[in-house]
This record gives sequence, structure tokens and C-alpha cells, in this order.
Amino acid sequence: MKGFASDNNSGVHPDVMKAIVEVNKEHAVGYGGDEVTARAEVLFQKVFGEQARVFFVYNGTGANVIALQAMTRPFNAVIAADTAHINVDECGAPEKHTGCKMLTIKTPDGKLTPDLIQQHLHGFGFEHHSQPGVVSITQSTEMGTLYSLEELKRLSDFVHSNGLFLHMDGARISNAAASLGCDFREMTTDVGVDVLSFGGTKNGLMFGEAVVFLNPGFVENAKYIRKQTTQLHSKMRFIAAQFEAFLTDGLWRKNAEHSNYMASLLARELESVKEVQLIQKPQANGVFAIVPPQIIEPLQQKYFFYMWDESRNEVRWMTSFDTTEEEIKGFVTEIKMLVENSQ
Amino acid sequence: MKGFASDNNSGVHPDVMKAIVEVNKEHAVGYGGDEVTARAEVLFQKVFGEQARVFFVYNGTGANVIALQAMTRPFNAVIAADTAHINVDECGAPEKHTGCKMLTIKTPDGKLTPDLIQQHLHGFGFEHHSQPGVVSITQSTEMGTLYSLEELKRLSDFVHSNGLFLHMDGARISNAAASLGCDFREMTTDVGVDVLSFGGTKNGLMFGEAVVFLNPGFVENAKYIRKQTTQLHSKMRFIAAQFEAFLTDGLWRKNAEHSNYMASLLARELESVKEVQLIQKPQANGVFAIVPPQIIEPLQQKYFFYMWDESRNEVRWMTSFDTTEEEIKGFVTEIKMLVENSQ
Amino acid sequence: MKGFASDNNSGVHPDVMKAIVEVNKEHAVGYGGDEVTARAEVLFQKVFGEQARVFFVYNGTGANVIALQAMTRPFNAVIAADTAHINVDECGAPEKHTGCKMLTIKTPDGKLTPDLIQQHLHGFGFEHHSQPGVVSITQSTEMGTLYSLEELKRLSDFVHSNGLFLHMDGARISNAAASLGCDFREMTTDVGVDVLSFGGTKNGLMFGEAVVFLNPGFVENAKYIRKQTTQLHSKMRFIAAQFEAFLTDGLWRKNAEHSNYMASLLARELESVKEVQLIQKPQANGVFAIVPPQIIEPLQQKYFFYMWDESRNEVRWMTSFDTTEEEIKGFVTEIKMLVENSQ
Amino acid sequence: MKGFASDNNSGVHPDVMKAIVEVNKEHAVGYGGDEVTARAEVLFQKVFGEQARVFFVYNGTGANVIALQAMTRPFNAVIAADTAHINVDECGAPEKHTGCKMLTIKTPDGKLTPDLIQQHLHGFGFEHHSQPGVVSITQSTEMGTLYSLEELKRLSDFVHSNGLFLHMDGARISNAAASLGCDFREMTTDVGVDVLSFGGTKNGLMFGEAVVFLNPGFVENAKYIRKQTTQLHSKMRFIAAQFEAFLTDGLWRKNAEHSNYMASLLARELESVKEVQLIQKPQANGVFAIVPPQIIEPLQQKYFFYMWDESRNEVRWMTSFDTTEEEIKGFVTEIKMLVENSQ
Repeated sequence: MKGFASDNNSGVHPDVMKAIVEVNKEHAVGYGGDEVTARAEVLFQKVFGEQARVFFVYNGTGANVIALQAMTRPFNAVIAADTAHINVDECGAPEKHTGCKMLTIKTPDGKLTPDLIQQHLHGFGFEHHSQPGVVSITQSTEMGTLYSLEELKRLSDFVHSNGLFLHMDGARISNAAASLGCDFREMTTDVGVDVLSFGGTKNGLMFGEAVVFLNPGFVENAKYIRKQTTQLHSKMRFIAAQFEAFLTDGLWRKNAEHSNYMASLLARELESVKEVQLIQKPQANGVFAIVPPQIIEPLQQKYFFYMWDESRNEVRWMTSFDTTEEEIKGFVTEIKMLVENSQ
Repeated sequence: MKGFASDNNSGVHPDVMKAIVEVNKEHAVGYGGDEVTARAEVLFQKVFGEQARVFFVYNGTGANVIALQAMTRPFNAVIAADTAHINVDECGAPEKHTGCKMLTIKTPDGKLTPDLIQQHLHGFGFEHHSQPGVVSITQSTEMGTLYSLEELKRLSDFVHSNGLFLHMDGARISNAAASLGCDFREMTTDVGVDVLSFGGTKNGLMFGEAVVFLNPGFVENAKYIRKQTTQLHSKMRFIAAQFEAFLTDGLWRKNAEHSNYMASLLARELESVKEVQLIQKPQANGVFAIVPPQIIEPLQQKYFFYMWDESRNEVRWMTSFDTTEEEIKGFVTEIKMLVENSQ
Repeated sequence: MKGFASDNNSGVHPDVMKAIVEVNKEHAVGYGGDEVTARAEVLFQKVFGEQARVFFVYNGTGANVIALQAMTRPFNAVIAADTAHINVDECGAPEKHTGCKMLTIKTPDGKLTPDLIQQHLHGFGFEHHSQPGVVSITQSTEMGTLYSLEELKRLSDFVHSNGLFLHMDGARISNAAASLGCDFREMTTDVGVDVLSFGGTKNGLMFGEAVVFLNPGFVENAKYIRKQTTQLHSKMRFIAAQFEAFLTDGLWRKNAEHSNYMASLLARELESVKEVQLIQKPQANGVFAIVPPQIIEPLQQKYFFYMWDESRNEVRWMTSFDTTEEEIKGFVTEIKMLVENSQ
Repeated sequence: MKGFASDNNSGVHPDVMKAIVEVNKEHAVGYGGDEVTARAEVLFQKVFGEQARVFFVYNGTGANVIALQAMTRPFNAVIAADTAHINVDECGAPEKHTGCKMLTIKTPDGKLTPDLIQQHLHGFGFEHHSQPGVVSITQSTEMGTLYSLEELKRLSDFVHSNGLFLHMDGARISNAAASLGCDFREMTTDVGVDVLSFGGTKNGLMFGEAVVFLNPGFVENAKYIRKQTTQLHSKMRFIAAQFEAFLTDGLWRKNAEHSNYMASLLARELESVKEVQLIQKPQANGVFAIVPPQIIEPLQQKYFFYMWDESRNEVRWMTSFDTTEEEIKGFVTEIKMLVENSQ
């Protein structure tokens, strides 16, 4: 049974699985010393620019805490939206691994702005105060919204002009790039992102994410930090091969465009259901809606999905690279039926 | 090109790959809430006993630091052989994640004994002294040796009678069980191991290890520790399916028996090469030997392997589930030729 | 030159200094094994009840992070007002030492209530979420306000009924008890506080605070935590003697009543200065006021004090055990003059 | 009752107490912003050189872990003698605060040499291996021995030529300088020590040690690290005043020469007691001896002291700035009597 709980409930894209199977021959040097990894590393430099250095890891939390450790010392503070994955979905891993304080910001849409960040930019040089060191943003955000390239550039300039650095959590970076119609480099290197957590698992990989250092100043210790954080894989070629498939022939974009389209289709189909109120026009692959409370449980019995904000009956529906039009339509039909019956 | 560097240079066993491919259909609840994971959890209870609780993780370092975090507080000390993986191969991850001190012991063969441990059993209740809390052993050891069941039982009784707990790093536990001719339970639950890091990757898996709690007293916080340590996988079924294959029809034992046999074959073939001195009769899948220094580099150009102790020209050769007799014979032929030419 | 920056700008009360000088004879067992410490420990049990266990430390940040380490594991969250000292004045020490996440709450007056705390009481058992473990309150608060005994009891019951524990930062606990007209036990043990950071330095001591465990469940590891946190003093008698003086003949109360009175006097004298707007009637020894921006700098040139909230020209004036009526009057005269001149 | 347990069982030197009392007047800016602290900071620069920067802290463990945090990242290793205070007497504080691994070395006399250190200088650049970053030595050592200036210079050169840095734990640095007849600078700055933990408490202070940064490269973050480590005192003038007295008119040297002399006197007096075997000629203020086991307990009933190595009946006797000749003689008389009676 498929559902709309998360894009990581889907399986592995066939092209990715094929790459995994094909790389399974002979022996290979472990821990990234193999040829497949070498090829994938070059591929990332083609995508992000010559100066980029990629470190493959297991998962998004791992990527985030490695990035943050490389960018901070324990007396620093990390500024993020209060809805950020690093703040609400990682069981305090950022604090535990970095020792840093999280300074969070309430936002209407999961997006930070210079104005919002300003409230935390004080106490520099004051030893009683955790020193702001990094601003972390998510693209696309946990609220299903997007930063435009202009917004990213303005944010990056603001962050750097205040002596801080910019981390991007790109767990759903493919959906963002597909939606904005740009490539990865335009959205990261070119706007001044310092370190990127590059996501794959939510867009068709089996396992594996990547930390991409765009600012060479943070690379030096990365390999030790990855190992000490328990995120260094021995049979690395099986991660590298997935990313090779992911970045070849635009697979990442095809998958992301598909799931984005499915989200927009779901939103469009729901326009006619006046009892369901969409929070905003979906920009990536997530639909957030306020629904009649009495339909939630019966709907969850047929389709797995999560409550987003119980206090106002808001739910989150995520689409995936393998969501079909039929599933969207079946889902909307079920919603309509439940709404009618509940009246 | 195959080599003898490590059993993790091999690829994925075909049966394991088949299980991965087969489980790749439909959607599944993430983070271990799926049916494949549920089945695999039951399987571990069949293997280790009703009270056992398994937590799947990504890799061995992850398994070890999760186990140790569950068993300690930061003011504790962890006692281990100075050759232990947790001491020399994890870039200080145990110290960083637990905050504990490592108390290490020089051993002739990688094995701890009550007598050896005794030197660290003092200072209990003395607040200036890190309080000994856990003894960690490796089975089979990093030196390719084995604890007998009797040795394990005696060690476990000693550890517990002193108020400490016993952790086993089982990165190569299959090789140990195959060599001893016992099953996993006899070597862990039945002798009193409290928490086990159960290895899969070095015996045919793509990725995935498991923390097995045999002492129920340490289970309560395990799920939070796994998440905060960055070791919780979203698409968990792809780890669970591998372990299901691993534990079905004795695949683990077949693989381990094979690699053990290859190591013993290598040792036997080398008996006739008097210039190569075996450190000990191999008990698992590792062969340690002192070799003429001048043959090391030329040999490494054809076969990848690691120096073990440069100070005495000791090398380590690991065999794998897919090592063939031909490879062993070709390797020995090469050694013989190099030895002859170097004289 | 005296000022109103902080009650820790004052020196040492003569009775405390006398105790220090008197205890300086002969040798004494180090690290708290001496007779003076033994006497002081008994004194704390008289004050807080038989079950209380006291651990002397150097300072308030030390007391707080020891208390929190004893009460939590790293996957827990600590709930506090966003103005709490542990959140804004300890350079991230709580996060670094405990590994925990801080969940902060915006309050009008520095005080938590069950209603305010409720927003963070969710996600129990959900491994992605830092598990709420401790509520930390400050008495008197950083805003100069007080919890009544009834409020404390209600808060404590609420905290415990949700499975959490209550920590009190009592850096200015004397001022609170003096203001409420109660003793320490009524405000801590009797209302259900689990662990208390008991302050001395801000009320006449040279150095030294105390962690008082009222809930015996958290005592076991305290001595190791204190040592590992670097807060165990060797010549302990010099801390213990200060607390002995502090708790003898009501010195703590006399000092606190005096500084409270000075704050109320300052507030009263300022009533006639309509350009200075008091935030609230002072309940302890702090006066918070919004003042004309142009007088701040000239006033600071004569009297040292801190801005509290630059965005609205709010300043904080703290009184001390040695503040005199003359100083208050001189200060108010200066304010009046600056206000007049600036018009 | 005086004893020979530790030099921190003594009280406060009268000149130091006088300085404390005298500085207790008026108000002073907290946390080191006061004039007394400013004067003391200048004094340290006079003693250690213009480039030196001093940070006052509470105790030796605090000084050590601040120094080590400033000099390392968590993936580094700290090399020290296995008898080092940071290894055996700080309850794992270095590991907890830095995240680093301790690499320990067995020594005959508590002293490291280039040859001994060499065993740990490998694995550079290898991510599985904690990267050696700091060598930490103690002067005078925990074994009562001394590094000569030549030995220090050679060690420092060796450490730096290998890309590591040198930390000195100077808990008893006064005793070392007094014994070597040199000043502090010759023994630290001039031989290339990077960061020094400068001790005061064991030589007549009430509380207070100092971290002295001689290599300016490590100063930048020190103030934040001190605060986050809980080692920043509010009423700083009371530490600064003690150090001012300590460094004025050679008080530190007079105290140290006295305690050194008392140790040598004790050693000389014991020469005639053939049942008591001195481990070595005392170089500072500690005497280590193997004594008949049956006299230990009765002797401890009259004089407090610690066992050093139970396995061979070795005890440690420390002298202090206030030890008297009469006490030495009374102690030796008691030993002689116990030895005679026990035969």
C-alpha cells in the first residue's frame, strides 16, 4: 500500500538499483579509495564547480551534523527556522555532536530572511553568549516552500557580511532545482552557500547522502569528522554508484519533476473540495492542508500520512518519484467520499 | 583485481543482493516501522533468545558507539585490548560519543583475560578516577584469534562479579561461530554477553550491522541513542532484508566457513615458504605473517593488503566469502617467486 | 565606584571573610573530606531536610550544568524561559556538557506556567524528537520577578505528572525567600523541586555555589559529574566555611532583605520621574526600567550597569547587600538631572 | 593535624590571605573587567613575555581541559605519560570536554622523551586514526621528578618538528623552577611550550590557577572556552589578587624552595632507615618510598598520606610551604618506632 507520509517511504528507482547491481563485482578498495567513488567525486565537481569537495555519508542527519561540525566550534550558535529538520527531527543530534546552541526563529513559511535573522545577531565578542557562527536553511523547506535564487543570494550576502557562514540542508534539493528550473550550482555555489547537505534518499536512492563543501576553508578536517561521526561506509562504491546514476542523464531532475508534478496535481484536484484548505500553492513535492478532523483517521486507515500541526488539523502529504496519477485520483476520491459522509 | 586487504573489499553476496532487489516494491513505513523489519526482528529473537532486542544500524563503528553509550555514563571507563577496533580504528568515536575514557591492555593475541583486566579494577567510588563500567571484547579478535566458549563464560562471570558489563564487538562474529562450530546464541546470550555489535558487512552484506541487546536493562534508551548518533536509516527494509537473507538457510555460516577455510588454506600453502613466518595458526579468516621486507612492495602492486606492524614487517591478509582457491594459489605462487628473486 | 550592574560586582560580606580567615589554619583533607565541609553538609540537611545532599561547586554555571547532567541523558530536552541564565548567559555550556536540546519559551515576566510549558510536551516516545526531561526555572527570575509558593507547587505537580523533573536555578534564591518571607525548604523541598542550584556569590560570598539534591534519585553519580565537570575544589573548607557563615544567624536573609529593600527604594524614588518607566514593581533586588535613550550613556559613565533590551531602551539595575541609601539617592539625583538636562 | 597527603591539604599563605582581604572593598566590574585583574594580566606578561596571554580559572583540571580544548579538535589525540594527572586524576574530564583520545605512555619516572613519544607518531592523514595533536607533560611530574631545561627544549623541538603542540601541566611549576634555579619564562616560553596550566593552589593560594597562552595562535577562542567550561569567575579580583601576591617579591619561589627543602630533608632523614627504600632522590616536593607494609596503617592513623602503588607498598609523601622541620623529624621518629616495633 502506498501512501503520502514521506518521500522516503518509496523504494529505490530502477536505474539506481541497476547501478548498484552492476557495481557488485570483484573487490574494491574500501572507504572510498575505489574507482567508482573517484568517478562520482569528479561528477560532483562537474556539477558544483572545480573547488567543490564531496564526502559521501549514510543519511541526512549524518550529513547535517558533519557539515555543522566542520563549520563551528562548540561555543558557536547555529541559527535556523524553528521548523528546520536539524531542530525538530534529529533528536538533538546537532547539539550532541557540535556542542553548539541552536537559535531558532519562528517563520510563516519555513524560510529565513535577513530581517528574521537579525534578532540573533548580537553579543559578538561577549563571552557569556554563544557566538553566532552558522545560518542553516533548508531548500526546499520543511514547509514545502522554496527560496528563489535572488532570496538565496541576498541571504548569503547578509550572512557573510555579518561574519557567519551559510549551510544548506538539501534533503529535497532536487525538488527545489526542478521547481526553480535551475541546476544545482546556480542554487548553491553561485549564490554563496558554504556547505551543502546533498540529499538522495528522498529522491530514489536506497541509502546515501553527501556533504558538499563549496567553501574550501572547511574541507581540511572533513574526513576525520565523517569517520568520528560514524558516517564512513566501508563498501563505498555502493553509495557512489547510486549518485553516479542519480547525476547521469538528469535522473534526479526527472524524478523530482515527477513528484513535484504529482503534488501540484493533488493540489489542483483538491481545489474543488472546499472543506479542504490548502496552506499554500505547493512549490515542491509537499502539500500542506487543513482538513475536517473527522476524516483524518479514516483516511489514514487507507493511506499512511502524518499530522503536521494537530492544533489546527493540518496534515502533510508528500509525493514521490513513483507516485502515479491514479494514486492521486484515488486519494482525492477517498477524501471527497469521507468529506461527504461526514456531513 | 582482488586482494587480501580486508573482508570488506568484497562485494555483496548474490543471495543478499537478491533479497534487496525483491524488497524493492511498493511503499513501506520508514525508520523500521515496516513488515520486513518486523520479520527480521523476530528472526533475531529466534537466534538470540526471546529477551533479545535488535536495532539495525549502518556500520560497525555506529554499532559500537551506540552499544557503549547505552551501557555507560561519561564518567565511566571502557576496558579493551589495545588492538581493539574501538581503540585504534574509529578515530576516537567512542570517546567523542560517550565521553568515557578508554583503558587499554597490551595482549599477546588480542584477547583479554580476568588477569589482564584486573590491573584496571581499582578506584571504585573514588571520584577522581573514571569508573570502570564496561569490558569490550572482539570475537573473533582483530588478531585473527578466538575466545573459546569457556573463556567467554569465565570472562563474563569475572566482569559481572566486579559490577561491570560485557560488550562484544562481533564485526566478524560469523567467522568465530563457524570456527567454533557453535551458533550465535551459545557464544553470546548463553555466556552472558550484555550487548553485542553484530556484524554483517564483512560477511557479504552491502551495508548494515545490528546492535543486539541481550541484557534487557540497556534497551530503554537505545532508540533515541541510535537516532541521535545518526545511525537510524529511513528505508530500513533494505537493511532488514539483508539480515533476513543472512540468517536464512545458514548463509552467514556458509560464507564464514568458506573464508575461514581460505585462510587456513593460505596458511597451509605458506608452510613450505620458510622465509614467511606465520604469527599463529589462523582461527578465523585472517592470516598474520612476518615477511621479508623487500617483497612487500612488489607484492602489494599485485595484491592490495595492509601492513600490520611495520616495526617487524608483519602483514595482515584477510580472506572473504568470495575468495577462491585459485586466488590463494596464485598469491602464494607470487610470494614464492618474489622470495626467490629477492635472494 | 559602586554601580548597579550586578550583585556580583559587590565584594565579600565581612562575616564571610571572617569565616574564611578563621578556617585558615592547620592542614585539612582535600576535596571535601574535611570537618568544616562535614559540618556545612549537615547544615544543609537541617535547612532542606534529611534527604538533601549538597555538593559544593565554584559557580552558578557549574552548579546548573552539574544539576542538568545528573537529571538528563543527551537525548533529553530541557525546557526553560528564553530569558533563563542557562539559555542566554552560559555560552552554551548546558548544551555542551549535557548534549541536550534547550526548548525555550517566550514569557512576559521570566516565569513559566503549565500552560506555557504545554507547547513542548509532545513527541514522547518518538525517537526523532528530543525527549523532554527537565523543566528549569529561576527563582527569583532573571526579570526580577518571583514565583509564589502556590505557583511553584502547581508547576512542580504539573512537571511531575508529565513524567519530567524540576530544576531550580537559585542564583538569587535568598532574595526570593526574603521577599516571600519563607525559608528555603518551603520554597524547594516542600513544593517538590528535584535539584536546586543554590547561590551564594551574588549575596555576599567570595566564590562558591552548591548543588542541592532534594530528590535522592539523582545523587548517585553527582560526585563523578562534579569532578568531570571541573567543579571539585581541593581546598574545600574555604567554600564550606563561607556557607557555614551564610546559613548562620540568618546572614543570607539579612543580606537579601537589604538588597531587596534597596531595589524597592530605588523604584519608589523613581516614581516621581515620569520619564523613567518601571517594567514592574520589583519583587527581589532587580529594577527594570525603560529610560530616555539619551541619558543612558552619560549615566553609565558615572554608574556601571547593563542594557537589558536595546530595542526598547530597557535597562537593568541590580542592588546588592552593600548598597546604601545614599547611593540610591545619589543615583536617582543623577538620573533626574540627566533627564532635565536632556529636555 | 598536619600530614603528607598532598600540598593542597595546606591552607592559604598569609601574604595571599592579606591580598584577598585588602582587595575586598568597593565594587568591581565582574568577570575580569576590573583593575586588579588588569594588573595581574600585565604581571604575567612581565613574567612570560609580551606575547603571553593569561586566563584565570578555578582549578587545575579546569586549566588543563581549557588548554587542551584550545589546542585540539575532537578527532585529535593527546599524548601523555600514563601517570599524568590528566590521565588518572581528572575522572575523564579531558576526554569528555575535548572528545579526544588519550594516548598514554609507560615511563620509569613520569617523564616523556622523543623516543617514548615516537611510538604514537603514526597514522597521520589516516582518517581511521585519532590524529596526534598535542603532547602534554607535567613539570614537576606526578612522580616528583623534573625535566631539565635541555630536556624541555629537545622535547619541544621534537614535538613541533612533528607538527604537534606542547602543553605543560604546571600544577607544581613553582617547585620545578625553584629546584632548577630558573625563572618561569626560561622553563616555558624560552623552550617552546605552547600553552601552560599554571598552578597556584598547591603552593599557597586559596583557589585559582591560570591558563597561560605562550603561542598566540591558540588565544582567540580561549575566553569562550573558559566560560563554556564553567571556569569563569564573577568576582575575579579575588583570584587576581592572589596571583599578584604570588608573583610579588618572589613569594612563589620562597614557598616552593621551602617545600622542596622539606622533601629533601625528609629523604635525608630516612637514609638511615634501611627498611624504607626511596624510589629516587626527590627533585621537587614529593618523596616516593617503598615501606614495610605493616607500618602503613598505623602511620596513616597519625599522619594522612596516600598509597601510590599498592602492588609494591609504595607510598607518596608531599611536603608543603608550611611544613616544618619539627614535623619532618616527628614523622621520621614515628616511622623509626613503627619499624622497630614491627620486627
